Amino acid sequence: MLEIDASGRLRHLIGLEHLPRERILALLDRADALRAASRDGTRPLDTLRGRTVVNLFFEPSTRTRTSFDLAAQRLGAHVVNFDIASSSTVKGESLLDTVHTLEAMRCDAFVVRHKESGTPEYIARHLRSNAAVLNAGDGNRAHPTQGLLDALTLRRHAGDPASLCVTICGDIRHSRVARSDVHAFAALGVREIRLCAPPELAPAPSEFPQCRLFDDFDAAIAGADVVVMLRLQKERMQAAAIPSEAEYFARYGLSAERLRRAQPQCVVMHPGPINRGVEIASDVADGERSLILEQVANGVFVRMAVLAELLGVDARSA
Amino acid sequence: MLEIDASGRLRHLIGLEHLPRERILALLDRADALRAASRDGTRPLDTLRGRTVVNLFFEPSTRTRTSFDLAAQRLGAHVVNFDIASSSTVKGESLLDTVHTLEAMRCDAFVVRHKESGTPEYIARHLRSNAAVLNAGDGNRAHPTQGLLDALTLRRHAGDPASLCVTICGDIRHSRVARSDVHAFAALGVREIRLCAPPELAPAPSEFPQCRLFDDFDAAIAGADVVVMLRLQKERMQAAAIPSEAEYFARYGLSAERLRRAQPQCVVMHPGPINRGVEIASDVADGERSLILEQVANGVFVRMAVLAELLGVDARSA
Amino acid sequence: MLEIDASGRLRHLIGLEHLPRERILALLDRADALRAASRDGTRPLDTLRGRTVVNLFFEPSTRTRTSFDLAAQRLGAHVVNFDIASSSTVKGESLLDTVHTLEAMRCDAFVVRHKESGTPEYIARHLRSNAAVLNAGDGNRAHPTQGLLDALTLRRHAGDPASLCVTICGDIRHSRVARSDVHAFAALGVREIRLCAPPELAPAPSEFPQCRLFDDFDAAIAGADVVVMLRLQKERMQAAAIPSEAEYFARYGLSAERLRRAQPQCVVMHPGPINRGVEIASDVADGERSLILEQVANGVFVRMAVLAELLGVDARSA
Repeated sequence: MLEIDASGRLRHLIGLEHLPRERILALLDRADALRAASRDGTRPLDTLRGRTVVNLFFEPSTRTRTSFDLAAQRLGAHVVNFDIASSSTVKGESLLDTVHTLEAMRCDAFVVRHKESGTPEYIARHLRSNAAVLNAGDGNRAHPTQGLLDALTLRRHAGDPASLCVTICGDIRHSRVARSDVHAFAALGVREIRLCAPPELAPAPSEFPQCRLFDDFDAAIAGADVVVMLRLQKERMQAAAIPSEAEYFARYGLSAERLRRAQPQCVVMHPGPINRGVEIASDVADGERSLILEQVANGVFVRMAVLAELLGVDARSA
Repeated sequence: MLEIDASGRLRHLIGLEHLPRERILALLDRADALRAASRDGTRPLDTLRGRTVVNLFFEPSTRTRTSFDLAAQRLGAHVVNFDIASSSTVKGESLLDTVHTLEAMRCDAFVVRHKESGTPEYIARHLRSNAAVLNAGDGNRAHPTQGLLDALTLRRHAGDPASLCVTICGDIRHSRVARSDVHAFAALGVREIRLCAPPELAPAPSEFPQCRLFDDFDAAIAGADVVVMLRLQKERMQAAAIPSEAEYFARYGLSAERLRRAQPQCVVMHPGPINRGVEIASDVADGERSLILEQVANGVFVRMAVLAELLGVDARSA
Repeated sequence: MLEIDASGRLRHLIGLEHLPRERILALLDRADALRAASRDGTRPLDTLRGRTVVNLFFEPSTRTRTSFDLAAQRLGAHVVNFDIASSSTVKGESLLDTVHTLEAMRCDAFVVRHKESGTPEYIARHLRSNAAVLNAGDGNRAHPTQGLLDALTLRRHAGDPASLCVTICGDIRHSRVARSDVHAFAALGVREIRLCAPPELAPAPSEFPQCRLFDDFDAAIAGADVVVMLRLQKERMQAAAIPSEAEYFARYGLSAERLRRAQPQCVVMHPGPINRGVEIASDVADGERSLILEQVANGVFVRMAVLAELLGVDARSA
């Protein structure tokens, strides 16, 4: 198996679908432990002293790249941020030649974001060293650290998973976040997962056998304990035959009024960046039920946990 | 008050106009102390160990961004340089959502440069953590670390402020440097501040009641002890009805000949980057009266002082 | 002499042509020593603690910039990566004003890549501090750390230099790599150096009196112990009157078949990034005779050695 080696060690984080439940929970526990050890991120650690982490981002990203950058710095690693536009890829060097070159320079981890699904796995399959690949989002396929941080946020702020009903709403078909969330929430043992999308943006029914599918958001949110709203890529609206952002918001946006159909304690999540007034109302995004900034905070600890697991002394050497 | 909290601690550095004179002098003293403690910048300190400084530059800048970057690194902080062009702002995330996201990641300071006046203050008013905002230049309004470093340079190299006459020449109307310099020089107790600009680029007379306004540079420089030349934004020349760079230089440029109208020991300052042959002659910029590179050197220590004051253990905790 | 001061210390690395043989060998020895001391690059050193290295790249580069970045970080230096496109050079600041500004901020080393030959030397001649300039590739002229790393690779993997025949093939006329390699290989005492190029891309015969010139690759490679293939700049093909990449490969590309004309143990080098199927066949580039990734690995140690030599305590102070 690509992600776990013969001795049972985690080698890469490509997706969550192949990770046993216990391993996902252990990563969340490690994130909590790193939160404590780093005093909420204010005390630098030297877990990864001497290691080198490369951020290989082929798509722009504020939060994910910075989150990985800080996670690696706070663990004492050297960080190289690869600006793809200014790199030799402009000279036509192939992706794998770039990776092999960085491996030869003793880079220990590649944090990869790419618009093509499967790129991180492709890189992992062609490595020549024992470097680790961390998927930071590939196409529609997976965004595993987002899944983990959402699960961590849910575990910390939404009570016993076994009693929870979670509704994920938006462009499920094209969402790597939804895919990783479903795996992570299932690992937590969430009672019910509902997926809601406009019909044109719904997933193939066979893809999520463990979830209930909706196209009516009012029905999907009824009684939910957690709502995860997805970012609407504006170019998808046309595909969904939705004439305007206002129309999308009316049908699939999370307003305070609609939120009242959920459980009274229902919390709200969103991977960000948010489109205010498109998939979520500003008063909900900024309201007291919103966990959006908790997700961001948890993201750094989850990424520290994954880096430490993949590169740390305990996980690699000895 | 936004910049100083109830207990009297400095929370942000937005401008110099609200800072009491003693506090400005204390920052200059701290810059001198950090120069000594860091052995002129060659000995790294750990004053900000575990802290995270974000450079949020929405305008390009060589010297200011690098100066803050080095100041933070030399104090032991983690630094994140935000490349705005490649960040999620391209996905339309709002400025405040970006800031709140970075706060959630436990960033302790935002160094902000923006072409819109008031952006750093706007950010500071909407923070959700106890992070600090450092204005690195906003529109025409303020560039407080430039004011401080110019004051430090003047204090170190131009003798007793109470006896000095300082002439600032250029596009005063649109200059954030001039505004911050006037506040900083006034705090030092400079005897006389003269502002000289082409009529179309002169400030409103009411804005600088403590300064003498000139539009004839020969008159403004007569007997001066310090001359501060401002960079001419080329697009302003047309507004000033000045037909060419040569014409601007003839009327408002600092030549060696014109400098002879000042005091014999008169020193020359410029915030950089300089336009050689436009607002300043090369032989003056590179001459022995020029303090331009001293300003650059002092800039790093001033920024270390401001960061240490805003984020340091003494200023924040306990 | 620009590169070596009166006391015999190495001040800059501009090219290899002025460096005595013993000094080149000493740099290679120091690279080997740093490999050991850093445990193959995994143990961070503090040789350059408190020093600041600036990467001033006016041309895009994956491997060289990252290699210098990692070399400096692994020696404990502060690193500033100058993104030229986003810097004040867009405001028209001159190259020397940028350099003098960075010197005033106490930057200790400038790693310079520029498309104009002579830029690093020009900078070194106009410094105002005792900073060091490291040429990271200037025009057609020199790429001295590439020469050193190729020599180190050859010394480690190709046996006794005095018995070796080395063939360098490609656009010799415009190649800074070829120029630096010839100097470095000569310093090692390589028995024979052959240069092979299409007639239109051949060097002036007077430039390399110590080399044998070829335009027939089959002849040039016959009996060689080492083949160094150069990257073909696609825009040169027209100048060489070569109608296609396939045609170039047929005449000057390194195929497995052609490699059989060399010695049985012949090793293959290339500075990268490679054009697969243009100057080198994929099976050769990825084959067991290829030292391409060894070159990359050695590059980090060579750059550590040069930085340590130029900036280290032993070389500068006391």
